[in-house]
Amino acid sequence: MSSVDELYPVSCPFCKIADAYPPEASPVPQSPDPERVDPQAHVILSTPYALAFLDILPIAPGHILLTTRHHYRKLSDLYTTPQHPNHPSSDETQQALESARALGEWLPPLSRALCKVTGIEDWNIVQNNGERAAQVVPHVHFHLIPRYQEGRRENAGKGKVDVGMLKSWRMFGRGAREDLDEEEGEEMAGLLRGALREEVEGGGKAKL
Amino acid sequence: MSSVDELYPVSCPFCKIADAYPPEASPVPQSPDPERVDPQAHVILSTPYALAFLDILPIAPGHILLTTRHHYRKLSDLYTTPQHPNHPSSDETQQALESARALGEWLPPLSRALCKVTGIEDWNIVQNNGERAAQVVPHVHFHLIPRYQEGRRENAGKGKVDVGMLKSWRMFGRGAREDLDEEEGEEMAGLLRGALREEVEGGGKAKL
Repeated sequence: MSSVDELYPVSCPFCKIADAYPPEASPVPQSPDPERVDPQAHVILSTPYALAFLDILPIAPGHILLTTRHHYRKLSDLYTTPQHPNHPSSDETQQALESARALGEWLPPLSRALCKVTGIEDWNIVQNNGERAAQVVPHVHFHLIPRYQEGRRENAGKGKVDVGMLKSWRMFGRGAREDLDEEEGEEMAGLLRGALREEVEGGGKAKL
Repeated sequence: MSSVDELYPVSCPFCKIADAYPPEASPVPQSPDPERVDPQAHVILSTPYALAFLDILPIAPGHILLTTRHHYRKLSDLYTTPQHPNHPSSDETQQALESARALGEWLPPLSRALCKVTGIEDWNIVQNNGERAAQVVPHVHFHLIPRYQEGRRENAGKGKVDVGMLKSWRMFGRGAREDLDEEEGEEMAGLLRGALREEVEGGGKAKL
């Protein structure tokens, strides 16, 4: 007998990724198969409240998305205040609070992993809410976008999008960006997972 | 006798604001005097780990900055992972972790207050790391930038910067933006504090 989920598959692409990559013992999955979803997902982080994976339309090589495991359309849908009248359920409030904290908590180690792997020192964090703000996927997500030094891009993979194109908010729409190359994505995600694992495990050194 | 602090005043403008507006009993200060620092600060939020105030060079009316109380230059300087080899002090790690979580935790209620006060439905969150990423003040901060609907800007104050100018990352530099009008700033900050207070207190209704 078909379940309701089989009859009505998840339509949000980030919820599809969240469903296909449940949390594991470690926040950094060992070597997750990108083919569990279509289009491929190059997952870097998977916890009970947050996921990170490569943007399939990278603005620059190494472009990461950090998102909530649970579905929230805009940042304002995360009702983090206890006993807010619009969200009387304390379970929902707790889930939103943990999700919001997880976003804040994972941005720094993801940033360090990104810098280490790509060699960049500068990057932007961008989170868009609503169409006029260039939000494309209606599920809260932060972009981590490396800003490469002129002439240093060759160190960072063979991404086809010129970083100089990152001039306009229109870059966040489809059209101006090219699809992520699957092989490049797999290599980049593997490197990022390695660097993030070192962050999580304290550089691989013995714990104090 | 002069203290060291008097002889060597704080040079980071956001640390100056943090020093001038210590945490109070409520996260939303009652009616803080903007003149405690020069240039004026229109403070909306002041907690042990986070502060929010109006950008003095607003890209659009209502442009808010959310920052950490403690000084971190880039997001990557928040070493949130316990026992990271670069940050052996557990106090520093704990402070960074609480700061990172506070950033995540306050973005949703600040966003809701911003929407309520300005009438916008769409907005961008932007956090810049390093010069090539258009970071101006070297102290971690998130921009909350309203995206007004065409022709609806008149509802939202008399800011002098055309929202249509928010096209380029260059907008984050000085030059293209005009100073915040002090009276407009005080009015906007008062409205935002009122809306944020309702968020924190659960809409002013009796707690369950």
